[in-house]
Amino acid sequence: MKDFKELRKKLIEETKKKIKASVKKDNLIIQAVNSIDEADRAANTLAKRLREWYSFYLPEFSNSIASHQKFAELILKKSKKELLAEIKLSPEKSMGADLEKEDLDAMFELAKALGGLYNYKEKELKYLEAAAKKHCPNVTALAGHLIAAKLISLAGSLEKLSAMPSSTIQLLGAEKALFRHLTTGAKSPKYGILHEHPLILNAKKSEHGRIARLLADKIAIAAKVDFFKGDFVGDRLKKEIEKRIKGDIEKNSRGNSKGRAK
Amino acid sequence: MKDFKELRKKLIEETKKKIKASVKKDNLIIQAVNSIDEADRAANTLAKRLREWYSFYLPEFSNSIASHQKFAELILKKSKKELLAEIKLSPEKSMGADLEKEDLDAMFELAKALGGLYNYKEKELKYLEAAAKKHCPNVTALAGHLIAAKLISLAGSLEKLSAMPSSTIQLLGAEKALFRHLTTGAKSPKYGILHEHPLILNAKKSEHGRIARLLADKIAIAAKVDFFKGDFVGDRLKKEIEKRIKGDIEKNSRGNSKGRAK
Repeated sequence: MKDFKELRKKLIEETKKKIKASVKKDNLIIQAVNSIDEADRAANTLAKRLREWYSFYLPEFSNSIASHQKFAELILKKSKKELLAEIKLSPEKSMGADLEKEDLDAMFELAKALGGLYNYKEKELKYLEAAAKKHCPNVTALAGHLIAAKLISLAGSLEKLSAMPSSTIQLLGAEKALFRHLTTGAKSPKYGILHEHPLILNAKKSEHGRIARLLADKIAIAAKVDFFKGDFVGDRLKKEIEKRIKGDIEKNSRGNSKGRAK
Repeated sequence: MKDFKELRKKLIEETKKKIKASVKKDNLIIQAVNSIDEADRAANTLAKRLREWYSFYLPEFSNSIASHQKFAELILKKSKKELLAEIKLSPEKSMGADLEKEDLDAMFELAKALGGLYNYKEKELKYLEAAAKKHCPNVTALAGHLIAAKLISLAGSLEKLSAMPSSTIQLLGAEKALFRHLTTGAKSPKYGILHEHPLILNAKKSEHGRIARLLADKIAIAAKVDFFKGDFVGDRLKKEIEKRIKGDIEKNSRGNSKGRAK
């Protein structure tokens, strides 16, 4: 009986050590990227609130500026008069009410809190960039640090990502659409989280699926290289993608008999 | 034709002036209380994230402290060693991994951002308290500034609240449950936002409905007094509620033939 107790204690200790050793950079990257997502969502909600609130004071200004972050900064920095001058409106033409100082201050507190959240997001993005470059340099070179971190988060770890076929990587983040496709026969998704990639964002819509496939192909290779600590081949892979995209455009334009594209 | 154009211009100007004059303290209070709600929700999400993140570093500490705010403050202020000493655990028994400084800093940034949100909430609550006391002193005396502001927000304005019968006030914030009751015959709700009131929170469950009814009765009176700028009667109304609650308890205990309660 005593032996069993001894054994139990030792096993628990052993397990604790294993738990301690199980924390990897993956875990930290996943937490960081998720916290950025959550801070982003919180900032959006609060920014919408701030705009609604501020519109009692100066409704004409909100429309003139698209970025929430800039909006919060500007209303803190400049007075109503200066802002009105910026949008070229004379004060007596504004529909905004004149508020007392305490009411304004309450509003500005929200703008400050919002500034704090944006500030946090920026710092965390910097950390994420450094961490991703160190942990998975090849995937980061291909996909950028934010998408690289999201891919790891969706896969669960770099190890799992490296074991995935490129078709799975292509659809990471599009699980809902994929299962809708499988169950109801709706259109199959072309990409998941990869839709945020600049190569896809800047391409024609008809090219999206093809570029996502190309990207996923190379990311699958890069993840394997990263996980097994291979050399840096990210730049080469990226050039290959760009060449393929360009090559196909050339082919297409020849097909359209418009001569060789430069 | 020219007259029409003139007229149109004048009418637009007139409307703008009316819009400008339509901003009331109600609107500002509603924005403030909603922004507190939203900041609260954001802080909760981020706090859960922080706890999960921090548990890689020191999993044993998270359980020992219930308040998110305190948790964020403590991990910023104290080192791992001090925190371990606080929960009486020797460092070698912890399951937490030893993280590098940059990884820790990223985590602490989240704790700081969270602190900023809590800070914001506190400041906004102070503003709300002052504003509610000034704008609707009687309702605030009965319900507290937070519930008073939420009641105004749910009703749309103090004017609308003052026109409501007490039964409507009792169920403000329980619209979903009320309509479920009306359409499916589920149990009728006893109270809406009033469930946050300390008199209800501290009462026996069987008393909840009765106290909510009492409170709503007096709040309906108070709202009318507030809207028509009557004298301050909040204290008297509050005493009446407390007397009624106490009186009924006495009656009950006499009914149970346990003698007169003190």
